[in-house]
Amino acid sequence: MTVTSDMLRACPADLGAADRAALADCIDRCLDCVQACTACADACLAEDTVGELRACIRACLDCADICDATARILSRRTGHGADVALDVLAACAVACEACAGQCARHAGCHEHCAVCAEACRRCAEACRTLLETLS
Amino acid sequence: MTVTSDMLRACPADLGAADRAALADCIDRCLDCVQACTACADACLAEDTVGELRACIRACLDCADICDATARILSRRTGHGADVALDVLAACAVACEACAGQCARHAGCHEHCAVCAEACRRCAEACRTLLETLS
Amino acid sequence: MTVTSDMLRACPADLGAADRAALADCIDRCLDCVQACTACADACLAEDTVGELRACIRACLDCADICDATARILSRRTGHGADVALDVLAACAVACEACAGQCARHAGCHEHCAVCAEACRRCAEACRTLLETLS
Amino acid sequence: MTVTSDMLRACPADLGAADRAALADCIDRCLDCVQACTACADACLAEDTVGELRACIRACLDCADICDATARILSRRTGHGADVALDVLAACAVACEACAGQCARHAGCHEHCAVCAEACRRCAEACRTLLETLS
Repeated sequence: MTVTSDMLRACPADLGAADRAALADCIDRCLDCVQACTACADACLAEDTVGELRACIRACLDCADICDATARILSRRTGHGADVALDVLAACAVACEACAGQCARHAGCHEHCAVCAEACRRCAEACRTLLETLS
Repeated sequence: MTVTSDMLRACPADLGAADRAALADCIDRCLDCVQACTACADACLAEDTVGELRACIRACLDCADICDATARILSRRTGHGADVALDVLAACAVACEACAGQCARHAGCHEHCAVCAEACRRCAEACRTLLETLS
Repeated sequence: MTVTSDMLRACPADLGAADRAALADCIDRCLDCVQACTACADACLAEDTVGELRACIRACLDCADICDATARILSRRTGHGADVALDVLAACAVACEACAGQCARHAGCHEHCAVCAEACRRCAEACRTLLETLS
Repeated sequence: MTVTSDMLRACPADLGAADRAALADCIDRCLDCVQACTACADACLAEDTVGELRACIRACLDCADICDATARILSRRTGHGADVALDVLAACAVACEACAGQCARHAGCHEHCAVCAEACRRCAEACRTLLETLS
């Protein structure tokens, strides 16, 4: 069990249409993605070929920021917020797919890009699964 | 002139379709909104009537998070990122409009809600204006 | 293995004095704490006794923000940054201890405060352990 | 008047020892620094000499993250939080001074580094001034 699933079980607010497991998974995948994308942008910066990794670094930094906001917004269940959550989830899925695409190009050369691409793909899938549950 | 407009003038990357003034205004309105929403959530929490302000606090916290991510993502001009920026901008506009609506209900009683509602409205407008420029 | 430890293994930069396991643990505990504190502030807000939980909510929101910054800063290993990391780690430990103290007061009544207090304690310990490694 | 000073005037919580003007100035300088540092990291990444700007990019990214957390934490006045605020302010001042130092090295070549160095210096000064007020 993760801290996230423990917190969701302890939440006094009605979780509404959200499937608890899909919600916990999406939050955890977003937090993994914040870490992977922040670390991958930094690792790309340390490479000799940094000049060829600009688009990858940009995608990672953007993805970290939207995943961070998504994890926080999904962690709140009190009051309204459903419409905002749907739009943020959709934007997060797009950012994760874009970053997975950039990192996949360099996954053969750089292990950090391979790990990050996989973290982004899993996060995008978790966002799409949760979007279906909530819609 | 703001720090943001100075930074945009100094940016070596092609700013592309983005109108420089619309971009600077949107970034600055997002940062204003991070502050207003964070402070308004906190001020609502200090009110005797906090029990009636739950939806407003929730909307403020969500709005601060998405405005924060939007300001950061819009501040990056290098590499790709256009599609992600469009989706984030759209989600940000929705969050600002939702928060402006919540705060407007309490603007007569609480000056902090009045100031925050206005900051959210201005940010939503700046997002919509920039979306038209970029689309 | 977590995404964080996979990313650290793939990092091209010299990890310097930082023990890899202590570093991965600290980053992961910070991200857990971002989630637990964000969710606990929200769960407190949903309680009937929200008026008595103001200091707890405040501590949670502050703790989430500093843990978020700490996780990001620790995830970067390229270039300098050691002094900044030490000061941020120390501030993060203080915020986690303060939040653990607030949540512990309500842990008997609210399961979310019990889970959050434990997440904060583990994060504070991980910060203190890493500080010793890095100093 | 800025949104921040309007929000501080509307705040129902006791602002305590904090001088209102010093507090508003520090929050606004932190938010300026989030923008300048995010944009400067991105602009450095677009330069042909990106390989020589690694330490500068790292310092900018760290500085943006700690300034972001500091602006949010200082915007909250409800409940306790004084000790945490002091430690975060001190860490923020150190990060701003480190980033100002890195950017100053490249200020002659890159206008974005000159603007960012100045934003960092002003933020560090505002943090030091507020620390004296609060101590």
